[in-house]
Order: sequence, then structure tokens, then C-alpha cells
Amino acid sequence: MSFESNGEIACCGGKLLKLSHKSNEIGSHMDVNIYLPKQYYNGDGNPIPVIYFLSGLTCTPQNASEKAFWQIQADNYGFSIVFPDTSPRGDEIPDDKDQSYDFGLGAGFYVDATEKPFADHYRMFSYIHEELPHALDKFFNRDAKKLEFVHNTGITGHSMGGYGALTGFLKYYGKDRYVSCSAFAPIVNPSQVPWGQKAFTGYLGHDKELWKQHDPSYIIKNVDNTTGSEILIHQGSSDPFLEKQLRPDLLLEAVKGTSWENKIKVNVVDGFDHSYYFVSSFVPQHAAFHAKNLGLI
Amino acid sequence: MSFESNGEIACCGGKLLKLSHKSNEIGSHMDVNIYLPKQYYNGDGNPIPVIYFLSGLTCTPQNASEKAFWQIQADNYGFSIVFPDTSPRGDEIPDDKDQSYDFGLGAGFYVDATEKPFADHYRMFSYIHEELPHALDKFFNRDAKKLEFVHNTGITGHSMGGYGALTGFLKYYGKDRYVSCSAFAPIVNPSQVPWGQKAFTGYLGHDKELWKQHDPSYIIKNVDNTTGSEILIHQGSSDPFLEKQLRPDLLLEAVKGTSWENKIKVNVVDGFDHSYYFVSSFVPQHAAFHAKNLGLI
Repeated sequence: MSFESNGEIACCGGKLLKLSHKSNEIGSHMDVNIYLPKQYYNGDGNPIPVIYFLSGLTCTPQNASEKAFWQIQADNYGFSIVFPDTSPRGDEIPDDKDQSYDFGLGAGFYVDATEKPFADHYRMFSYIHEELPHALDKFFNRDAKKLEFVHNTGITGHSMGGYGALTGFLKYYGKDRYVSCSAFAPIVNPSQVPWGQKAFTGYLGHDKELWKQHDPSYIIKNVDNTTGSEILIHQGSSDPFLEKQLRPDLLLEAVKGTSWENKIKVNVVDGFDHSYYFVSSFVPQHAAFHAKNLGLI
Repeated sequence: MSFESNGEIACCGGKLLKLSHKSNEIGSHMDVNIYLPKQYYNGDGNPIPVIYFLSGLTCTPQNASEKAFWQIQADNYGFSIVFPDTSPRGDEIPDDKDQSYDFGLGAGFYVDATEKPFADHYRMFSYIHEELPHALDKFFNRDAKKLEFVHNTGITGHSMGGYGALTGFLKYYGKDRYVSCSAFAPIVNPSQVPWGQKAFTGYLGHDKELWKQHDPSYIIKNVDNTTGSEILIHQGSSDPFLEKQLRPDLLLEAVKGTSWENKIKVNVVDGFDHSYYFVSSFVPQHAAFHAKNLGLI
């Protein structure tokens, strides 16, 4: 599994690599950006931990690369950050029949679709959590272990990507994959909100019992928080999607009486919206959180 | 002169205001963004210094607001930053007949045009350095001096905006306006490079002697650096426009034997390009430079 380079951009003290590769899971080319911090180029040679940032509806790898400003934090602490795409792309990929922003292209929702015509290509769960990390590991660590893509990684994301981060973290909990999870304005309970219901119906079908396997607010009830993990969430109080789509209160409600109670740290921040102005404002706090969990501080 | 609000966005510890106003100089509505740092809301009440960031070709006020990451620096030091537009806008505004990216809309070049059909609207020099600062001063300081828009300000910019910053700083030198100037990959000698020659021909006509009044590499020879001012410049070594359009060496050559010799600090940074990845990487250094000149550290 090889990657092509579409650009190598000097940024802060390291480089942002714009890559693409043929994905077997997705059945087409996928773009992915990765920031290699200054420690990659002049560090002590120890493997550098990786954080995955999953973007939200409509986004490509470029949005967060340009606007979230993780790079300076990556240099501060010595981690690498991977910005995957949010869906399959290309003329051969089926899109929403209405070409809406919240389903189909740009809206893969980080699930493996089972419904036609999406099941062949929309395999974003397997892509993000299996194929991509292993492909990156193979590509970058050919000669020596330079970056830790698979084990002891961090995962975070924004909105739909926050959903993807929570789900991945919980589904792999205790399996030596993600040791750190945070989210910016995540969709926490997709079964109960319009964005999630539309995506799950289209990608997974109408069986709402099945949806629960893909919904962090259900999954978390069956995951024992054996290590006292905390999950850091920021949510803007002026986010126009807060009341209808995001609802962090539903996750807090779901974990009452479980081993996750008081472990989900939801910070509702006054006046912030849903944009990258919000994300970039709290990236420094999330970077410190992940750096601590990854053993960097 | 009043401003309309098109949005007030929480960002870092302050707010980004998206404003627009009817400009007399330009003869149409102009957008401008301003970041008010946390000190504006909870500071000691002393007037907050302002830095103007002039953007490059094709940009609106949004590009630098989203991608340059001045905001966190503004909070660090306690300055405000103003992001003006780069040209007149609107259906009634004459554009380049070829609709090129480097002339007409999005490419006002920070000069007052004298040539038809541009002279009526393309008055960016008077707009940026006279009308806008005074209009902002009137609007924000109605009741008390909260922000210092006119005197003791900083000015900086990127590419065409770096040209605009250098020119404004030098033309107002010693007039208690700009006390601090820096630039990111500026066009330093427009008379000698294609972008500048195209703009000056179209906006100012064919008299090349006249162009010198608008060219920092000529203007600077007639400005006595009485206060030992330094100008900070960063320039990426892999900038595709370096050799043909930007040429910081021409400014260094121009100041040889003048009071500016050794005062223009050109940092050629290895591998950086012309994008906002480059700008944002060096904003922290420029912020510290301006903060020092503005008496904030």
C-alpha cells in the first residue's frame, strides 16, 4: 500500500504532507494530510505518537489542516497529526440523490455502510480505524519505527468527526489502539438527532436496534472504563446545532451510574459557534490533554 | 460613518467582528474584520493598540482571519488586529477586462488609481490609511478611547499586502501613525516586477517616474530613519514568486548607504512557500516584534 505525494508544505517547525492512496476498503483514491512535527526531523529518534483528527460534514483534509492550527501544538509536544477525508470521493462514487451536505459525498459518517448503493464504497469505519493506520505504518516505518500510527494513539474530531472519534475510541477500548479521546462539538447520540438518523437510515437501513451498535451513547454503556479514562469535550453555547443535532447532555445522561460517570468532561464555552474559530480556540487545551495521555508531558 | 455588523464570532479569548461600511473613498460598501482581544473585554481600560494586516492578491478579509492565527497572539500581547479587504467589490465596480487574479477585483494594490475606469473606485491608499482608521476610531471610541486606530499603530501584510504595509509605513514615517512595520513575502520593488508593472500601468498609467512615488524601494531613499526603526520581513525560500515578483534583495540593495542599511531584517526561511501555512508559521515572531514596538512588552 503506497502513498503518492501531492505536496510537502513547510509549516511551523515541520512539514504538512498532502498524500493520496488507493484504498481497498473505499475502492477509490483517498486524500489524507499528515503533519510531521519538528521532532520527526530533529528529534531523539523515539517513535512519535499520532493523533487522528476526524473532520465534520462537508470537509476535506484541507479544512482542519488550514484552520484548526494543530501544527504549532504538535511541535510544542512532539506528536504527529493525521487529517483523513470524510468520505469517498470521485465520479464513480454514489452521492445523495438530493446532493445534500449531510449525506453522501463529504458526509461518510465514519460507518461501514450496508445499504445499496453505498455499501461498496462507504466503508469509512474500516478505512479510518484499520486500513489507513496500517497503510501509514507500512509506508512511514519501512526502515525504522518513526511514527506510532496503530498503538497508543489519540483520536479527536469535530461534529460528525467528533462522533467518529468517540465511536472509534469506544469500539477499540482496551485493545491497545486509542489511549486518548477528545471531541469538539460532537454528535454524541446520532440515533436521536436528524443528522444521525438520516445518515444511519441511508447507510445502515431502518433497523434502529442495529443503529445502537454505532451510537456512542449506547456503546459506552457496555464498555467498562477499566483505566479511568477521561474524554474531553468542548461545545460552544452559541453553536446553532447544539440543541437539535449535538446534545452533549444525552451522553452525560447515558453514562449516569456507569464507570464513565464524571469521566466525560463537557466544557460548554460561552458564545462560541460551530466553526473552526471555535475549534482552533480550544485546540491548545485538547493538545495538552492528548499530550498528557500519550505520555509526552 | 457607521459600520454594520455581519457577525460577531467568539474566538480565542476575544471576538472577531465582521463589519461592513459605506466608504466614501471607494464609493461602495467595504468589508472589514477586526479582532478584539480579551483585554478589550476585561482589560485595565487603557487604549488597546491596533495592527493592520493587509492581505495579498485574491484575498478578502476572511482569508487571514481564518488562516493566519493572529488572534491567539493578540490575546497574548493585548493588541487588536484589523483585516481590511484588498479592493473595491460589487457589480458596479470595474474589473480587469480579462478578469485576471492580479488586477482589478481582489487586486487593488493599495494605491489611489488615476486611470480610467478605475480612478473613481480604486482608492485603496486613501481608504486604508485615512478613511478606514478614522472611521473605526469614530465608531469604536464614541464614548471613551478604547482602541488606538490612528496613532502609534502597527502595520503588516502579505505579498501585495506586504507592499501596502511598507508603502504606508514609509509614506507616513515621522507622522505619528505607524510605529511598527513588518511584512510576509512582500513585493518590495513593484516597478521592477510583473505584478507591480501590471498594477501600476493599469491604475497609475505609463509614467514610470510617477511609479517611484508608490514604490517602497524608491520611497525609502528619501525617508530618514530618525528613530532607528527596524522592518521585519520573512520570505520563504521555496516561494514560487520569490525570483520573479518579490525580490527582497532589491530592497536591501536600495537601502545600501542609507539610514535604513542593516535595519531591514530579511529572514529567508528554508523550504517555506507563499501560502498561509508560511504566514501563520511566522505570525508569532511578527506579533512579538510589533508588541515590542508598540510598548506592550
